[in-house]
Amino acid sequence: MAEPNNNTKARQKIAIVGLGLIGGSIGLAIKKANLGNVSVVGYDRESAAMNKARRVGAVDSTEGSISSAVRDAACVIIAVPVMTARRVMEEIAPHLAEGAVVTDTGSTKLKVMEWAADSLPDHVSFVGGHPMAGKETAGIDGADADLFRDATYCVVPMPDAPDGAVQVVLALVNALGARPWFVDPEEHDRYAAAISHMPMVLANALFTMARDSRAWPELSRMVGPGFKDMTRLASQDPEMQLDIVITNREGIVHWIERMQEELARWKEIAESDEESVFQALYKANLDRDDFILNGPKEPARPGDQNVPGSGEQLADMLFGARMTHRTREITKFFEDRSKSPRRRER
Amino acid sequence: MAEPNNNTKARQKIAIVGLGLIGGSIGLAIKKANLGNVSVVGYDRESAAMNKARRVGAVDSTEGSISSAVRDAACVIIAVPVMTARRVMEEIAPHLAEGAVVTDTGSTKLKVMEWAADSLPDHVSFVGGHPMAGKETAGIDGADADLFRDATYCVVPMPDAPDGAVQVVLALVNALGARPWFVDPEEHDRYAAAISHMPMVLANALFTMARDSRAWPELSRMVGPGFKDMTRLASQDPEMQLDIVITNREGIVHWIERMQEELARWKEIAESDEESVFQALYKANLDRDDFILNGPKEPARPGDQNVPGSGEQLADMLFGARMTHRTREITKFFEDRSKSPRRRER
Repeated sequence: MAEPNNNTKARQKIAIVGLGLIGGSIGLAIKKANLGNVSVVGYDRESAAMNKARRVGAVDSTEGSISSAVRDAACVIIAVPVMTARRVMEEIAPHLAEGAVVTDTGSTKLKVMEWAADSLPDHVSFVGGHPMAGKETAGIDGADADLFRDATYCVVPMPDAPDGAVQVVLALVNALGARPWFVDPEEHDRYAAAISHMPMVLANALFTMARDSRAWPELSRMVGPGFKDMTRLASQDPEMQLDIVITNREGIVHWIERMQEELARWKEIAESDEESVFQALYKANLDRDDFILNGPKEPARPGDQNVPGSGEQLADMLFGARMTHRTREITKFFEDRSKSPRRRER
Repeated sequence: MAEPNNNTKARQKIAIVGLGLIGGSIGLAIKKANLGNVSVVGYDRESAAMNKARRVGAVDSTEGSISSAVRDAACVIIAVPVMTARRVMEEIAPHLAEGAVVTDTGSTKLKVMEWAADSLPDHVSFVGGHPMAGKETAGIDGADADLFRDATYCVVPMPDAPDGAVQVVLALVNALGARPWFVDPEEHDRYAAAISHMPMVLANALFTMARDSRAWPELSRMVGPGFKDMTRLASQDPEMQLDIVITNREGIVHWIERMQEELARWKEIAESDEESVFQALYKANLDRDDFILNGPKEPARPGDQNVPGSGEQLADMLFGARMTHRTREITKFFEDRSKSPRRRER
């Protein structure tokens, strides 16, 4: 791991504050990466989590107090729900070593960056982080050295963070097998609201809609993998979910409204003629398959607005080799349909 | 496998029409179950699917025409999208053996039962089926002998189907490792709209909302497992999705409207005070975890309305041993919060 300053042996200590799913997985991944002369020290307010973290080898040792955990650490990783990060920063501030690099893993970044600016001393650097990874099993029990493999890891440096501090966090991201992506805190929170936080609320809404229905005893019998997957985010730690909502309310409410509009559009689609229904489903299917197979289209950066609209991208795809087969299929499909004796529904 | 009538050797033939994800998986599961003197014959309109099905051992043999595939079969499994099932029934009707048991795997049941009544000859029996299983990879490439393991398998017999025919389908469900659940076609479609078909539309809507956003180049970089899971159903075969929509429009539109209401409720929650947000998230979290851990609460049957409301169930849970820890957590959480110096958001 790169070190901004290697004049003392103590700089080889990495402290992880919060040994839940994320903190525990970071510990396991660092240990698996075999970074040499680095010791990982853990702290959690729950001693059970600390015991488990030691047992599974996510940390080399733990400390009974947060102050001794971070003391002399070259790098401090705060892996707690967003609102708790504020208190953690206040608590560790007096104990941080000169030149320490502090990072976090919180789901929102705007407040976190404000708190870091307010709470942390001038002799340390803060580089925010947010790994786009997670799983159903919360807590240290779900910890997994490969949780971050190939995941996007948002990196949000303070404007005054020196290059060396950013390099430390990039080395960490690299050790986790994740892909760093630099983003501003405002943009981060806006994008996360759309792609992660509103979907989390949507998962809750889908679950409660079914659960609160009088037909739940029957509905619950018919639950398959689709409903389970679509409601998984409702099983994330509710404290973490709460902190996301209260630190990103505006973005979440905005995207709930967008989702309501989109559902109104799909209601219209569901009520329209067969060909329109098929076109809408087929386009979504193509676009998603393309995304899942090929990933993000270009190395887009925040502020880069000069990208083809979805119509253009679809056209591009339709010329691609992979699409040839699909185009044949859709043509055949409509031919088949026009030959078949079925009556139009509704 | 049970046989309604075992006076001819030909009765030991099972025909699978449609060798996609479901048909292929049924074939693999039957073969794995080692049912003895049973031969599985497959048919698909795509010869590539037939070749692959033979290669992976999902069928013993295939036939070049649908009529020869079903001829002399004791059991015919129609595993095609719902609307195609109609044409398949018309095509196979003249070729079915006396006493044959015909079943399907379609996602909606009301239309299928009507078509079976209209198309199939009196000397065969129809017992509708719908396995509540699926996965991202469509087609024979995704076929998996364990796809149905522990899944609910809806069984929808025609009113005039003899016991022997129902027993054949139950034996099939058993061979797949699934759990049979008897349900009326109307009820099936209503429940499926809530728990499966509207969620499928919701997956499409969530994907297109993000995909059609100007920020998609950035949003796509931030996609994590949550967004992928929540949009997975949009990658199902669009023809299958279309058939679901056009044979269950009313139910889907009804549940889209319910979902819009539920989203409006969650928008209010997201805008309310911290404790209200937490209570809503916490209750959804408890209820979902309880469901995932313990499954459906009781052996509910269609029409069984005498079930506790969600408030009562929550109270039950709160007295349970597992809840004790959680209750301590929430108490501790609010204590911690009231002690911490954080300001209220917004």
